[in-house]
Amino acid sequence: MPDAVTAQTAALSIGPLPASRKIHVAGTLYPDLRVALREIAVSDPAEPVLRVYDASGPYTDPQAAIDLRAGLAPLRAAWCRPDGAPTQLAAARRGLITPEMEYVAIRENLGRQAALGHSDGEAFGAAIPERITAEFVRDEIARGRAIIPANINHPEAEPMIIGRNFLVKINANIGNSAVASSIEDEVEKMIWATRWGADTVMDLSTGANIHETREWIIRNSPVPIGTVPIYQALEKVGGRAEALTWEIFRDTVIEQAEQGVDYMTIHAGVRLAHIPLTAGRVTGIVSRGGSILAKWCLAHHRENFLYDNFAELCAILRRYDVSFSLGDGLRPGSIADANDAAQFAELETLGELTRDAWAHDVQTMIEGPGHVPMHKIKVNMDKQLAVCGEAPFYTLGPLTTDIAPGYDHITSGIGAAMIGWYGTAMLCYVTPKEHLGLPDRDDVKTGVITYKIAAHAADLAKGHPAARLRDDAVSRARFAFRWRDQFNLSLDPETAAAFHDETLPADGAKTAHFCSMCGPKFCSMKITQELKAYADQGMADKARAFRAQGGELYAKAVSG
Amino acid sequence: MPDAVTAQTAALSIGPLPASRKIHVAGTLYPDLRVALREIAVSDPAEPVLRVYDASGPYTDPQAAIDLRAGLAPLRAAWCRPDGAPTQLAAARRGLITPEMEYVAIRENLGRQAALGHSDGEAFGAAIPERITAEFVRDEIARGRAIIPANINHPEAEPMIIGRNFLVKINANIGNSAVASSIEDEVEKMIWATRWGADTVMDLSTGANIHETREWIIRNSPVPIGTVPIYQALEKVGGRAEALTWEIFRDTVIEQAEQGVDYMTIHAGVRLAHIPLTAGRVTGIVSRGGSILAKWCLAHHRENFLYDNFAELCAILRRYDVSFSLGDGLRPGSIADANDAAQFAELETLGELTRDAWAHDVQTMIEGPGHVPMHKIKVNMDKQLAVCGEAPFYTLGPLTTDIAPGYDHITSGIGAAMIGWYGTAMLCYVTPKEHLGLPDRDDVKTGVITYKIAAHAADLAKGHPAARLRDDAVSRARFAFRWRDQFNLSLDPETAAAFHDETLPADGAKTAHFCSMCGPKFCSMKITQELKAYADQGMADKARAFRAQGGELYAKAVSG
Repeated sequence: MPDAVTAQTAALSIGPLPASRKIHVAGTLYPDLRVALREIAVSDPAEPVLRVYDASGPYTDPQAAIDLRAGLAPLRAAWCRPDGAPTQLAAARRGLITPEMEYVAIRENLGRQAALGHSDGEAFGAAIPERITAEFVRDEIARGRAIIPANINHPEAEPMIIGRNFLVKINANIGNSAVASSIEDEVEKMIWATRWGADTVMDLSTGANIHETREWIIRNSPVPIGTVPIYQALEKVGGRAEALTWEIFRDTVIEQAEQGVDYMTIHAGVRLAHIPLTAGRVTGIVSRGGSILAKWCLAHHRENFLYDNFAELCAILRRYDVSFSLGDGLRPGSIADANDAAQFAELETLGELTRDAWAHDVQTMIEGPGHVPMHKIKVNMDKQLAVCGEAPFYTLGPLTTDIAPGYDHITSGIGAAMIGWYGTAMLCYVTPKEHLGLPDRDDVKTGVITYKIAAHAADLAKGHPAARLRDDAVSRARFAFRWRDQFNLSLDPETAAAFHDETLPADGAKTAHFCSMCGPKFCSMKITQELKAYADQGMADKARAFRAQGGELYAKAVSG
Repeated sequence: MPDAVTAQTAALSIGPLPASRKIHVAGTLYPDLRVALREIAVSDPAEPVLRVYDASGPYTDPQAAIDLRAGLAPLRAAWCRPDGAPTQLAAARRGLITPEMEYVAIRENLGRQAALGHSDGEAFGAAIPERITAEFVRDEIARGRAIIPANINHPEAEPMIIGRNFLVKINANIGNSAVASSIEDEVEKMIWATRWGADTVMDLSTGANIHETREWIIRNSPVPIGTVPIYQALEKVGGRAEALTWEIFRDTVIEQAEQGVDYMTIHAGVRLAHIPLTAGRVTGIVSRGGSILAKWCLAHHRENFLYDNFAELCAILRRYDVSFSLGDGLRPGSIADANDAAQFAELETLGELTRDAWAHDVQTMIEGPGHVPMHKIKVNMDKQLAVCGEAPFYTLGPLTTDIAPGYDHITSGIGAAMIGWYGTAMLCYVTPKEHLGLPDRDDVKTGVITYKIAAHAADLAKGHPAARLRDDAVSRARFAFRWRDQFNLSLDPETAAAFHDETLPADGAKTAHFCSMCGPKFCSMKITQELKAYADQGMADKARAFRAQGGELYAKAVSG
């Protein structure tokens, strides 16, 4: 790695989250596996500890030595690839369960034993099992319904799975641009994003030092890294789209695959014939890759070279087990352009390319919009499932209105929760800076937490058997006035505690039976607890008679 | 007003929003009406100015003299009430169109003439007309499907309507509690909330000086004010729920009605027999009013005195045209408790009370949950419509997960957008401080903007004929790199501009064809505009031939 970068761990966001410790679970098929999970302790001994899915890697493990220059330990270096099955898809089709498959099965199965049987969701045709087995993982991958993005040259990453029948995942975009940011910033941004729950990270750098930035990110990333290779290819031709060639692009893909990029956005669906369909749009082509390729197509009046050379591209990706993320270069950039002919024409092409990729054993997911009003979201999901043979959908938002720049994490969080419920496998976050500038550290966190909310709301609504465990743990802590537990069990303990402490900073307030929102006399939870005490003590005849009808009022609720 | 309060306009958030001016439109039936709207100017002379709904009252009008001690001008003081029709509902039933009805018709009709005929929404049975007439307003009120909360003693307020076939409205809660806040803070919070778009404000004060706080708020409020009278009644009995009596409550309602409260939350549906249904809950009773009344019912083992005295309550509210907001005292406070027997038993009672209120000519809306996962939201809406005869639904959120204290504006904004789409007429905001403390000024703004997003996303999805005008205006500004216009047309121009300027503060950047997110070479909108230029100039034969097929590529899009 370049000497110029002298990142120190002192500047990194490492160490455990509050009340949390890293635990490791061994495999059965592969006993050497150490699947990382996070355990959150609570103050009430009658309450179970809560184990949660953990994307943060060794950075939250105080036992792990962190040295950015050395990179993370190559977790998967010794995991054998079966002969003749270079990709997870090829292995799955041959009936082989890889270590990666067992790893994700253990991660995904988390909490299901403890689940309450409350999975009353509406899954819209998804087939979410009560228990995730390694064999189920294999079968889903073999069918193309899920992918494990895991480049053989990125052994540092902990395996994770993207598919409709698994937990909804989220991606955080990072990357410098020509006018802002530095390599150190971007590595810390990756650590920061995964600390708060990003399941994958895309490095969308377009400025200087693209290769070096990516190298640092990959070597230190516990999650799969995605890229959009056309950005670097464009840099190589001085930013002139029309100067791009297949050869330059191909070499860029190989360069990135060699480095260990786990999935690549490839805009092979932007076909020459689709471009005129965007003519009547309010916001034209808003995908960066899409606009670059459209420019190339028009300049040469030739078919998109990615489409024409797709078979060769498949052969390259297969060699490294890089997954396709088939880009939606013609996605709508405004409510006005949602679900138009250009968008759906491209989707049809992406379906065709999915089948081609599968024929080459290349794992594939499909990117989706964009800007879509609520009533037009579900048709996107349904069409994608039908056209792309249930390959995982990976959507940006969608943003449900255009009128709130500065709040597009929220306009899109609404759409993301809904499309996640309908079946999207991974949600690409949007930060408050969308449309306005490059996200900084706070924006990245806000984007990640917003999308963790959307993904979790989707898991709940789909009927994920164990999703409600965390909600219930927070709610019990809330009802019992275990303030610290409520904070620690939440997605962002720091913010929850800071908000509470703004008005009631004293330590005693952490056990007080009220907060500043309602004050002591008007706290409904306090009054309800008094009701319980009242009912329990049987101080009045009528209350006693009443209790006889109603059972031990609230006793069950409080003891959990 | 108390001399102790010496609020100065210097400390208030007044003055127009960027590029905006207040305009007034006259009525036809009532030519003296001056219906206030906001007009946003844009820099491109080819673009129309955009008129938007404006809840901010005289505070954004530089012509208006603001004096908190004098209160706002009593806009409606001279508007005659027809004899024998003391409420809007009574008037509507007699076929009378009141000035309030014409006022709201003009407000609601805004933009429909300019609308593009793109109303392709899914309205789930709502009957949204192409054009809102005063007669339509009258008919909707007569049917009980909409209300105009307008106490005869609050003439300062500008009329607004709450109903499924009108724009989705939002409410902001303010009010002090025993541990924080002051009168001046609360008045400014009201001005602040309406500045950003709150359509009504609830004063939920529970601390000292309840009467004085409310007086200041009402006299200075351009929007309807709601309250929960049981809070003040409880203060009168020293916070001891069991000491409450119907007489104390009744006198409190009269006191507040005399002051001019426009709608009151009344928890008359918390019946004695429903309380045992909450015994198995994770979070018991989380409504403050609900828990107070439950405690009273159990302490006395008697039916809720609000239920027993509902007819007398109706007679009082009728006299002032105070609207009922029938409270959901048994709403779920956690995902675990959503849609349970207690909640729906209360809803049945609210349906019964709605019919009683209508029999007394009292306008009525129904409060709704709470905490509800996405897949259980729609049944809430459908049941409410069926049980309550299409009376307007007024929901808190709902929050779609419990795991994100500190971000409950987002967990609930998701649910709010969805239930607004399904038919909720008004959305009660939730701020980032929910569950943690009393919201401050920033929290109020964040809550309001989040809920404006949810309400607008719902309007778009329902197919409101003019909703998309603003989205399209923002999108055209975005595509044309009219940065200032993009900011000014958005819900929060200050934040949008500040975010942009963080990385590109120079004035020149306001016309630059890129931002710091992608930088100049990778801006898709810039490339797309180049595509247009390329296509327009016809520099290459093939491009020319291509253009012949595709028409004037992007020309239409850019000129709007």
